Amino acid sequence: MAKKRVGVILSGCGVYDGAEIHESVITMLALDRAGAEMVICAPDVEQMHVINHHTGEVAAGEKRNVRIEAARIARGPVADVADVDADALDALILPGGFGAAKNLCNFAVAGADCDVNPDVAALVRKVHAQGKPVAAVCIAPALLAKVLGGEGPELTIGNDAGTAGALEALGAKHVACPVTEFVIDRERRLITSPAYMLAKSISEAAEGIEKTVAALMEMA
Amino acid sequence: MAKKRVGVILSGCGVYDGAEIHESVITMLALDRAGAEMVICAPDVEQMHVINHHTGEVAAGEKRNVRIEAARIARGPVADVADVDADALDALILPGGFGAAKNLCNFAVAGADCDVNPDVAALVRKVHAQGKPVAAVCIAPALLAKVLGGEGPELTIGNDAGTAGALEALGAKHVACPVTEFVIDRERRLITSPAYMLAKSISEAAEGIEKTVAALMEMA
Repeated sequence: MAKKRVGVILSGCGVYDGAEIHESVITMLALDRAGAEMVICAPDVEQMHVINHHTGEVAAGEKRNVRIEAARIARGPVADVADVDADALDALILPGGFGAAKNLCNFAVAGADCDVNPDVAALVRKVHAQGKPVAAVCIAPALLAKVLGGEGPELTIGNDAGTAGALEALGAKHVACPVTEFVIDRERRLITSPAYMLAKSISEAAEGIEKTVAALMEMA
Repeated sequence: MAKKRVGVILSGCGVYDGAEIHESVITMLALDRAGAEMVICAPDVEQMHVINHHTGEVAAGEKRNVRIEAARIARGPVADVADVDADALDALILPGGFGAAKNLCNFAVAGADCDVNPDVAALVRKVHAQGKPVAAVCIAPALLAKVLGGEGPELTIGNDAGTAGALEALGAKHVACPVTEFVIDRERRLITSPAYMLAKSISEAAEGIEKTVAALMEMA
């Protein structure tokens, strides 16, 4: 049987300005253990900013490229998300981290008024329109709410009332969810899990992500 | 029972110029699942260089600090390795990546003639001298060979003849080892595993690292 091909959209490398590293690695390990072939991709754009993760401050004047930094997590070249063919994928997953809300879209600063990177939005929309499952972790469900909110999808970002309200303003139905679980919208084939929106340890984040990936692979 | 405290020395963030991200995260997840308390640390020094991980080329003129980049993997502040008290640790582990051989020591360019960052060497030496177990993954055993080679420790970096020869020139006895296993020197309380020196997938690396951490915790 052919391996299932799963697109993984990364948003940089580091929780405060890019892809959350633990979530990304745990996703990749779970996909690999499930026998998936990964198509790791990222938009070829500049990061919103660079955060010094030791101090939490913006590193003034520093610039980094989302795709080039994502290659650190991938251990080598990653596809430009604009070049990824939805027809060649069986499923898609978006790990979290502020990069999902700063670089893939600008939900972190614009909330419900956010814009989504057009290549990322197009890939999500196409994979979804083909009836293939899409998963999103941590804050990344906000991007799904913006792109697919018109369908009234059931999504979770954990239990933060403010963020949940912004998702609902985008048309989504927010479902509260504990960190070690996930929410599945079977009709719309969407799977979401809070991960570090709630996780107090890497083990907690891992449990929810591993279940999310298992559900994604079962549906793919 | 008090949690076992395990020092984790990171060397940046990214396989080609820092700590190997998969190895670091898998190490942290295994330690957390085993109930360990982690003391994540890194030397507060500049990286040897910055590599664009998408192209594999040196990013000319770019500079990054090992400790600040390591904070990306740690999701926040990490201790300066110079400030870590060996007395307060029960064990120590060094994930790999070129950073271990470029930033913690310069084995990647100097081979058996390498120098080790004095704070890193001091912490390894003290933890070891207290009879506490020390683990190293991927290329990081080369650093152990330099610091502890006088004792003739049994170590592995997998099966690369050139690298193994350099370890032997430093006084170590190299033991060939498959990627999913580890080598244990029970007398000297050292545990090493090849990880991405041999791994062809993240799952392969994870299997050896998870066994390494289990052995480290059993010995701590």
